Amino acid sequence: MLIPNNKHKETFMSSSASAAATFDYGPIFARDLPAPAARWGGFSKFHFVGGNNDSELVPLDELVAATNTVMKREGRNLATYNLLTGPHGYRPLRDFLVGKLKRDAGMECCADDILITSGSLQGLDLVNAVLTEKGDTVLIEEDCYEGSIKRLVRRGVTPIGIPLDHDGLRTDVLAKTLADLKARGVRPKYIYVIPTVQNPTATIMSEARRRELLKLSDEYGVPIFEDDCYADLIWDGQRPPALYAMSKTSNVVYIGSFSKSVAPALRVGYIVAPWEVMSRILAMKTDAGSGSLEQMVLAEFCPKHFYDHVPKLNRGLRKKCEALMEALAEQFGTAAEFEDPKGGIFLWVKLPDNVDTLKLYQAAVKAGVAINPGVEWSVNGPHAKSRLRICFASPSVAQIKDGVAVLADVCHKEFGVPERSANIAKR
Amino acid sequence: MLIPNNKHKETFMSSSASAAATFDYGPIFARDLPAPAARWGGFSKFHFVGGNNDSELVPLDELVAATNTVMKREGRNLATYNLLTGPHGYRPLRDFLVGKLKRDAGMECCADDILITSGSLQGLDLVNAVLTEKGDTVLIEEDCYEGSIKRLVRRGVTPIGIPLDHDGLRTDVLAKTLADLKARGVRPKYIYVIPTVQNPTATIMSEARRRELLKLSDEYGVPIFEDDCYADLIWDGQRPPALYAMSKTSNVVYIGSFSKSVAPALRVGYIVAPWEVMSRILAMKTDAGSGSLEQMVLAEFCPKHFYDHVPKLNRGLRKKCEALMEALAEQFGTAAEFEDPKGGIFLWVKLPDNVDTLKLYQAAVKAGVAINPGVEWSVNGPHAKSRLRICFASPSVAQIKDGVAVLADVCHKEFGVPERSANIAKR
Repeated sequence: MLIPNNKHKETFMSSSASAAATFDYGPIFARDLPAPAARWGGFSKFHFVGGNNDSELVPLDELVAATNTVMKREGRNLATYNLLTGPHGYRPLRDFLVGKLKRDAGMECCADDILITSGSLQGLDLVNAVLTEKGDTVLIEEDCYEGSIKRLVRRGVTPIGIPLDHDGLRTDVLAKTLADLKARGVRPKYIYVIPTVQNPTATIMSEARRRELLKLSDEYGVPIFEDDCYADLIWDGQRPPALYAMSKTSNVVYIGSFSKSVAPALRVGYIVAPWEVMSRILAMKTDAGSGSLEQMVLAEFCPKHFYDHVPKLNRGLRKKCEALMEALAEQFGTAAEFEDPKGGIFLWVKLPDNVDTLKLYQAAVKAGVAINPGVEWSVNGPHAKSRLRICFASPSVAQIKDGVAVLADVCHKEFGVPERSANIAKR
Repeated sequence: MLIPNNKHKETFMSSSASAAATFDYGPIFARDLPAPAARWGGFSKFHFVGGNNDSELVPLDELVAATNTVMKREGRNLATYNLLTGPHGYRPLRDFLVGKLKRDAGMECCADDILITSGSLQGLDLVNAVLTEKGDTVLIEEDCYEGSIKRLVRRGVTPIGIPLDHDGLRTDVLAKTLADLKARGVRPKYIYVIPTVQNPTATIMSEARRRELLKLSDEYGVPIFEDDCYADLIWDGQRPPALYAMSKTSNVVYIGSFSKSVAPALRVGYIVAPWEVMSRILAMKTDAGSGSLEQMVLAEFCPKHFYDHVPKLNRGLRKKCEALMEALAEQFGTAAEFEDPKGGIFLWVKLPDNVDTLKLYQAAVKAGVAINPGVEWSVNGPHAKSRLRICFASPSVAQIKDGVAVLADVCHKEFGVPERSANIAKR
């Protein structure tokens, strides 16, 4: 029964004549799989993509102290799946969230209305699994988080885009779309919105629009799926109540995250939903719980430090945001149009119509600059063609400055835009 | 934009006359959802179910020290999804696994053959997503982990059971089944086995059977899905090489876990697979990485302590196992048949044919004793009807003793079995 020091594979590799052929998985794979992943190539020198945050703003000392305290007190509970507090996740973290969601988003909920998930991405998957199936239709903001669009497309669900303006989702267009779909016998499964620091536009939906949206949801019997994962990142901390808070009929399923407010790699998010939906979601959460150490650490950290940490984080992010806006103004001048956002970690930038940001993305990557091309963050291709998303939280101010200069060079070479940078004509 | 101190929900609850009705999600839910979850009822007094471990055997001091060290050194990297080492997971943990899998299981693999997952359960989901679809057939051990069976049934995949004996999967029956299926034009998508401390029978598949299994896999073009999650828990540490190690054709996809060897609630598992399969799996892992703090802590803990910790853990588990076997012998006498296992955290017990363990389970739960009824851990109902799984790692020796006594009482009342306990005739 002892392990021989076997070198099967090496023997096989070097004696191909007598060895069996490599197993062919081709006929075994499920149909309609996405394209295989490429080998990971590392980060770009100027990495303006992904929800990564500022490493200098990770509240390290506080997290280390929280980890020590909670591990010494409750570390033995790691022997039990979900610690000892059931399938919703670590109770002290849910207790913190009950208070946080009331304070920040005006939500009235109890600990068992909350399910801790492995990031809000698992929240997206669980809600999709419970509410949608192949052939369904959902309504989303026209410019929208790429991961949400991709998930829907992979499930065979059709996302229909509703345009946005300064106040968020255009509820007048939504009303018309719902009426049109109803006339055609189509009942969308949900209306997905990121109402508070929308991704990628950074708009904050006005309270009036929220009321209108809730009314339309009830009128057409189409629930709202509210993704509030950026809501903590508002410079002045002022926000309207969550749709979940304003709902009078439990027509909202809500997800949130600690990825943006504390640390992305912790992978801790949450779903808040009425029991009718939560009981269905729990039946689909068959992963024996999300990571408990990270839940314990957050539960210990947050009551003491969350409300001090978040404004500090926002001040740091605001500086980066200003650096990006300045760099764009300097390098692109009026060729780059964007709004000064009220929060978040990204800018949604419009370049002149002749710029195809998918091509710009391909050329920029070769020059060491990673950006998100607009067409990947929108269901309206023509509208998004000359737009791009630039994330500013992770790179340093110097990288922002230098990276935007490289991007402007690449863009000039590819599209003749901008014509001038830093008031010097581009050759 | 300030949050009003709104009490929408309370107002609604208390003024039902004028309020809108509660939203009806009935028409929105996907079809064929599993039954909704019931409210969590807490743990049974005698909790002999679930893969929970002995809380006294969590290597707490070493985990606390590892956490401190790694957080102080690399905690700022939590600002970046997947830390800085790409979509396969934290590189130092994969480096440890390369050595561990070579040493313990005879496997030759490199860091990029490994993907860190959120427990081996996410591994099951990813492999199923890549290899199976509705209508497929797979082969499994007849008595098998409930979570694996349930996942397949939910996907609409038919699991066909192959019986086990002392040496593990009956490869003679497997050969016949593969031939029969081929004659009917059915190519199963994989052969799923837990060859090393099988769940629930605790058998260890012999090397000869492993060779035979690998040969049949190649012959029929049906890959092997090897679940090695209990392989660290062998009393004497002696085990045959993994099927993955013995394969000459890359016909094995392998999953493992730290849940059984370190702590279940950490939720850290891994997949080892050839690139043809791994590249497909990576394309389906859209969760922005598994929990990084837990990966960091394990990567720091394992090189220093894993090989000291595991034998200690096994000595503790062996004591619990002996306590359970003694309690069964004392309370059930010859009515309870089982084999003295070489490792693991559970016993697979056969009671007399007139005992229906599903009914026993229902009665026992009311008396505060939770067990796994055989039919939930098998695809052969008649074979499993009077069998049950009893997990011994989490309860104390006293709880094992007392819980088995209660179970014997309940069983006697329901089925007249055992007739005597501790040599005293039951009334």
